[in-house]
Amino acid sequence: MKINRSRLLQQVEELARIGAVDGGCSRLALSDEDKQARDCVVGWMRDAGMEVSVDRIGNIIAVRPGTEDRPPVMTGSHIDTVTNGGRLDGSYGVLAGLEVARALDDHGVKTVHPIAVTVFTNEEGVRYTPDMMGSLVYAGGFPLDEALGTKGRDGTTVGEELQRIGYAGETECGALRPSSFVELHIEQGPMLEKEGIVIGAVEDLIGISWQELTFLGQANHAGTTPMEMRRDPGLVAAKIVAEVREICTSIGGSQRGTCGSIRFHPGAINVIPSRATMTVDLRNTVETDLRRAEEQLAEYAGRVASEEGVDLQVRQLVQFPPVKFDQGIVGKINASAEVLGYSVRRMTSGACHDAQMMARICAAAMIFVPSRDGVSHNPAEYTDPDHLEAGANVLLNTMLELSQA
Amino acid sequence: MKINRSRLLQQVEELARIGAVDGGCSRLALSDEDKQARDCVVGWMRDAGMEVSVDRIGNIIAVRPGTEDRPPVMTGSHIDTVTNGGRLDGSYGVLAGLEVARALDDHGVKTVHPIAVTVFTNEEGVRYTPDMMGSLVYAGGFPLDEALGTKGRDGTTVGEELQRIGYAGETECGALRPSSFVELHIEQGPMLEKEGIVIGAVEDLIGISWQELTFLGQANHAGTTPMEMRRDPGLVAAKIVAEVREICTSIGGSQRGTCGSIRFHPGAINVIPSRATMTVDLRNTVETDLRRAEEQLAEYAGRVASEEGVDLQVRQLVQFPPVKFDQGIVGKINASAEVLGYSVRRMTSGACHDAQMMARICAAAMIFVPSRDGVSHNPAEYTDPDHLEAGANVLLNTMLELSQA
Repeated sequence: MKINRSRLLQQVEELARIGAVDGGCSRLALSDEDKQARDCVVGWMRDAGMEVSVDRIGNIIAVRPGTEDRPPVMTGSHIDTVTNGGRLDGSYGVLAGLEVARALDDHGVKTVHPIAVTVFTNEEGVRYTPDMMGSLVYAGGFPLDEALGTKGRDGTTVGEELQRIGYAGETECGALRPSSFVELHIEQGPMLEKEGIVIGAVEDLIGISWQELTFLGQANHAGTTPMEMRRDPGLVAAKIVAEVREICTSIGGSQRGTCGSIRFHPGAINVIPSRATMTVDLRNTVETDLRRAEEQLAEYAGRVASEEGVDLQVRQLVQFPPVKFDQGIVGKINASAEVLGYSVRRMTSGACHDAQMMARICAAAMIFVPSRDGVSHNPAEYTDPDHLEAGANVLLNTMLELSQA
Repeated sequence: MKINRSRLLQQVEELARIGAVDGGCSRLALSDEDKQARDCVVGWMRDAGMEVSVDRIGNIIAVRPGTEDRPPVMTGSHIDTVTNGGRLDGSYGVLAGLEVARALDDHGVKTVHPIAVTVFTNEEGVRYTPDMMGSLVYAGGFPLDEALGTKGRDGTTVGEELQRIGYAGETECGALRPSSFVELHIEQGPMLEKEGIVIGAVEDLIGISWQELTFLGQANHAGTTPMEMRRDPGLVAAKIVAEVREICTSIGGSQRGTCGSIRFHPGAINVIPSRATMTVDLRNTVETDLRRAEEQLAEYAGRVASEEGVDLQVRQLVQFPPVKFDQGIVGKINASAEVLGYSVRRMTSGACHDAQMMARICAAAMIFVPSRDGVSHNPAEYTDPDHLEAGANVLLNTMLELSQA
């Protein structure tokens, strides 16, 4: 069974016009653009004859009934984007889910389990922290009240903005407990493209540790302060950036480490900084290795800061353990791809996704399609339409199988 | 012969009230505060019976006539400050110069050479680049038209702002060519305080090289991009920061190196930067060593950038060679301090000063007094009043000797 390629691609196109910038999209969570995109998707859900509800954190759940009163087979993702993000990250998974429901109608197929398609609130976490907020609350991992009270970087709160855009729903979060959850997403990495493979059957998801390190030293004049009298927090921060690469190389495997942000204060060319602040993003699929990377970083940072006479403050911003997806679903994804004639490999997700939260409450897995040049969170994000079609077909056949059991 | 301590300290106090912030001063060049400070100092110059002129770049020159038609013995400094600067940097030298003229009057002393006290325009270079603009133009090192046309970081130009505050003078720059120039200044470094010495006889001034390095790589997702596929400009910039310390330590002597500013773009915690921009401030009193530091930096930056597959752009922002001051004047400063009973040492200036520009057109040297904790460009900048008095007495006796020759 196949989905309707042109209908899917046309809706991807149409949704991308909301918040369009430079060939990409800016649709921050709970913004006017997010509201417009939600209204658009809800309209399409209703057009497909699905029953739509909104829960108290703003997740939108559309259900296509099954023949029996069973928990639904759910798919879903998000339609919020980062600032200057791409057209596919999130939206593709939601629209492919919708297309699954319509394809079942087209072929007159009834399923035993209901089929559900969910739009999760604030996956990107750009405006409100933490990211994956909607699915985290859905899975019971974050109290609803705390989520609604979250203050954004623009001073607004999640609860007020949900009210404002009309998506403060009535349904209890997580009331509809699925039997299984499958999320289709672009890879956002280079592996599938590099190996010329169309479908990734995602069997695990990398654990993540985000830290902010602040080093406090002594501001001084760059010309008059002898090298041996300096307490330079910028030097220490820079050494950490270099050491993060060393730690990742020495641990090997799936270990990754990134320093994406660094600031020196006051930041003048001729002033030794008084303060340096930087972030470290560490990831690994093996939890013990991830902990080892954190320990090596802490040991090195402490030692180098002390050598330079600089104080160190550490803030742990995020810490999610690695996730093992359901091997049964991964096997079905793999088999569906093979039956449909698509090349497929089992793989790891290096990014975070709503599926990792849903894995807390039901059997879950993910399907990936290639990202050109591995690029995402960028207007240049792109996936070949043949691959978008292929991913949706694998989602359709995987959900069909799960929903007949 | 001695200056009038309380008169000097009171004027230092009074001038510090203009643009006062948090115990320090913010008087950016050619701002309303600078105008007010200029008006105040010009008033005091006239009160002291001096003849005041303003040149085309806004330098203020006050002259106390000599008994013969000879070139003047000049002192001077600046009254502009950095943002949130101190009360003494610049102002102290100008007001002590004025006090020298008044002390000569008090003691009824006539000098053979005239005595001149100059306020140089835009020494700090915060609002308009380059710094030391007034003295550089005075010494013929920067064309007047170019200086007047300099656009500031706030979009204004030097020429317009000089007109606006009423300091676009008529006198040709450098028309009054001094026989010698002596600048009194706070050390802005820790050496005198550390050694418990009151007077620095400054015999040379460190050469300076400012560069901005930009590294261009490939932005990518922190979780999905394997370490070996990265082209991370942030890593390369960080390695440079660490290498600058290594280069300075290995060259030794007076070699200094500072990375005061660094920025990653886009600067997100989970995005490998596409671009890293940083500054390097290198200084040495020995020109060949300074060039060697630049070469080692260029070689290392090129090699590490190439290893990471990152492009490198270098902008040379400032390059001033080291300055040797006049040994005759340095000797007179040293002798004056000894006669007055102050401890004294010969030393190097690690900071830039108007005196280095004046050294291009006449015999020049500098006198330093201690800076508490070596701090300057900061409201916490402080010098013991006894040391302020001592410095002014050494300036008086040195100028007296120079002006009788």
